[in-house]
Amino acid sequence: MSKHLERDLEQLQTKLLALSAMVEAMIDKAGQSLRDGRSDLAQEVIASDDEVDRREVLIEEEALKIMALHQPVAIDLRRIAAVIKINNDLERIADLAVNVAERADQMARFPDFGIPATLQQMSGCAIKMVRGALDAFVQLDTDLAETIRAADDEVDTLNYELIARLRETMQTEPSTIEPALHCFSVSRHLERIADHATNIAEDVIFLVQGHIARHQHETPSTR
Amino acid sequence: MSKHLERDLEQLQTKLLALSAMVEAMIDKAGQSLRDGRSDLAQEVIASDDEVDRREVLIEEEALKIMALHQPVAIDLRRIAAVIKINNDLERIADLAVNVAERADQMARFPDFGIPATLQQMSGCAIKMVRGALDAFVQLDTDLAETIRAADDEVDTLNYELIARLRETMQTEPSTIEPALHCFSVSRHLERIADHATNIAEDVIFLVQGHIARHQHETPSTR
Repeated sequence: MSKHLERDLEQLQTKLLALSAMVEAMIDKAGQSLRDGRSDLAQEVIASDDEVDRREVLIEEEALKIMALHQPVAIDLRRIAAVIKINNDLERIADLAVNVAERADQMARFPDFGIPATLQQMSGCAIKMVRGALDAFVQLDTDLAETIRAADDEVDTLNYELIARLRETMQTEPSTIEPALHCFSVSRHLERIADHATNIAEDVIFLVQGHIARHQHETPSTR
Repeated sequence: MSKHLERDLEQLQTKLLALSAMVEAMIDKAGQSLRDGRSDLAQEVIASDDEVDRREVLIEEEALKIMALHQPVAIDLRRIAAVIKINNDLERIADLAVNVAERADQMARFPDFGIPATLQQMSGCAIKMVRGALDAFVQLDTDLAETIRAADDEVDTLNYELIARLRETMQTEPSTIEPALHCFSVSRHLERIADHATNIAEDVIFLVQGHIARHQHETPSTR
């Protein structure tokens, strides 16, 4: 890899990591807003979405510029293609954090409905998964990527259990249906965030294994 | 554009359109399965997911091969990058069609719960949006892409209205909570399919406008 390409790729990854940090903070803040009934935090999350959109466009532009300028092949090309996909995932994760914040805002109208602690657990898990998926990408670490996939099953289980409990609550006490449905939605949004993190982790595995597969194909004598 | 690149790009788009047709058929079948309580159709949808995954990988491989081989720039490069993103969206739409099919399977246990007609309407809308978004991409038609964005608002409205009605049903008759929640989920899945179609349409607009913006920048005298 040329020094220039290496430097440009590193800068691109740094920007992607900064975007990820921003998106992780949005998930965290949306969760806090829900837990503490703080509308101001919800509004902050909603307000930061424009900046995420702006950065997403810039990162994609830059990835395409690197492709056109350096015309990378093999693993470098795959890496930049992965940046484009991951960038896209991060933007959608930010949208989901906004959805959680909007629900948190709604939930403030139901101070008597206890926010299930599971939602905080799911939110914490989702943030760790996003961060881990990005680390796995930067380090091309398939082991770490595999742990993200495993964590997704945990989040799915938490989601199912919570939905079952919310359903029971609604059945026992129909007056809770509206706030319970908001929590139901939050749970689904968090589960989708975890899905996006898993997609990123799967991109990393594909990226690394695709490379190995191709490499093996090129040097059949070493098999 | 070289003749070879043109031919390869056309073949790539043809494969993407074939994948889209397959995914549209899955949404349609999942909707039928729900409407007619046909578990066999739900199973067909679930079974076809592997083939979608396989095709997604092949299309991405091919897109990267074209990039490495032809080293396209400007609009051609953007087009191939868009193929990678759209391909990714189609795979996720297929996952959502599978989710709808799984819910349809569950709903078969509640034959007395009338499936809301709105779900069929949303499903029809979602299919049209996916098809339209792909057509907009192939024809680089931003007007068509704009109509997809407008259709997304319709689907969102149908989703909100349906959820409000389901909430009322649940409040009036708590025994309907379980099937109503399945319908609630189907409605969300269909709304997400529409979101993915909208993302594709937005990619088309970005693709075309990005090109125009760059073109204007290159030839300031024509502004």
